[in-house]
Amino acid sequence: MKKFREIHHQFMAEGTKLVLDLLESSVPVKMIFATDEWIREHAGKIRAVPVPVTLEELSRITALATAPPVLALFGVPEPGLTPDALKSDLVLVLDEIHDPGNLGTILRIADWFGIRQIVCSENTVDLYNPKVVQATMGSIARISVLYTNIADWLSKIPEGIPVYGTSLDGENIYSQKLTRNGAIIIGSESSGISREARLFITNKLLIPSFSDGAHAESLNASVATAIVCSEFRRMNAV
Amino acid sequence: MKKFREIHHQFMAEGTKLVLDLLESSVPVKMIFATDEWIREHAGKIRAVPVPVTLEELSRITALATAPPVLALFGVPEPGLTPDALKSDLVLVLDEIHDPGNLGTILRIADWFGIRQIVCSENTVDLYNPKVVQATMGSIARISVLYTNIADWLSKIPEGIPVYGTSLDGENIYSQKLTRNGAIIIGSESSGISREARLFITNKLLIPSFSDGAHAESLNASVATAIVCSEFRRMNAV
Repeated sequence: MKKFREIHHQFMAEGTKLVLDLLESSVPVKMIFATDEWIREHAGKIRAVPVPVTLEELSRITALATAPPVLALFGVPEPGLTPDALKSDLVLVLDEIHDPGNLGTILRIADWFGIRQIVCSENTVDLYNPKVVQATMGSIARISVLYTNIADWLSKIPEGIPVYGTSLDGENIYSQKLTRNGAIIIGSESSGISREARLFITNKLLIPSFSDGAHAESLNASVATAIVCSEFRRMNAV
Repeated sequence: MKKFREIHHQFMAEGTKLVLDLLESSVPVKMIFATDEWIREHAGKIRAVPVPVTLEELSRITALATAPPVLALFGVPEPGLTPDALKSDLVLVLDEIHDPGNLGTILRIADWFGIRQIVCSENTVDLYNPKVVQATMGSIARISVLYTNIADWLSKIPEGIPVYGTSLDGENIYSQKLTRNGAIIIGSESSGISREARLFITNKLLIPSFSDGAHAESLNASVATAIVCSEFRRMNAV
């Protein structure tokens, strides 16, 4: 429950891959509940004293359809993600992403394209919601995510650092010079980038449609993120 | 219900945008149930005698959380999609896509990038499932979708036409020559492209990761589709 996560600053992760990915990261582990077999098999990788439980016990607390052999509680990291990060890196700024699947998918995309930092507006869906945690397929272990007032955050970006955002009156992304650093704002599924965030955009980007005549009105938020990240990396590949 | 769709070759679409998109297409309309107000407002676009109903009546048959002012039944199109289409156009071939959201998103992507034809393996999720119909956001009206045995279909492709597929041992997509025509096979969420379909690939493509060190194991099927379609269109843009 969100309330529990907020009071205790802990979140739950289930399944071998996800738990091992998190144990390999710097995310603090609080509790591990696992079967004896799982504990024996992964003894070398466990950074906390595990609580042995049976699969039956796990099946009573799991959020998944089938109980996995391990379930763990981790501390919610509090990344000190300042706009200074933008001097050398790309940072995604999510402006009100509502769909848990989209947020999980965006973390996987960032992870694939080597983007390590994401800033989320306060009204973006909670990353530590078990559905989102699982949808990240382990990428949550490798990405720093800060929830904050994004207009405030964007206002502190040093002069000269580009802030990109997709926009219907933007320039064709395929023929733009895209930099190796800067912020990329991704707008919400239903209403795009908010007015307050839009004020900070220095470079408007358009993913052009290649359809003659009538076509889809828009691309899904995670699909647009994928194409944008792909273009930034392709253009700057050695 | 799938049984109903198979027996009657009809599917249901709800909401103004989706129904109007379908009414503008060549998909045959069977029945329209709408409020008096909706019928008056859209009289010029209705290709069938509408049945006036109240919002209350609609709320008893809708699959959505809130009843929209219109619900219509359309005939399932039976596209005569032969491999000859590949001589001038790109065709997506979906090899066992399970997730309704992914299939809907892939139709939107195809629609955006001007790809008009999709071939689905028989074990791909049913396009005419109301969830998928709604997730296409109207793109279902503009894309021809054939369900068939894809290995059979691929085996009939004329000599010399490229068949692309993503593969971990493929060549970097960003430095490949991608053609304006041919088939692009998209593999399933869990196991990629099946062995039978893989035999027909002439050009293996890899979307490279740009992460140093550990990273996501894979990209979501619709995300990979988006990046691949974007690259084909970018490279051949005038």
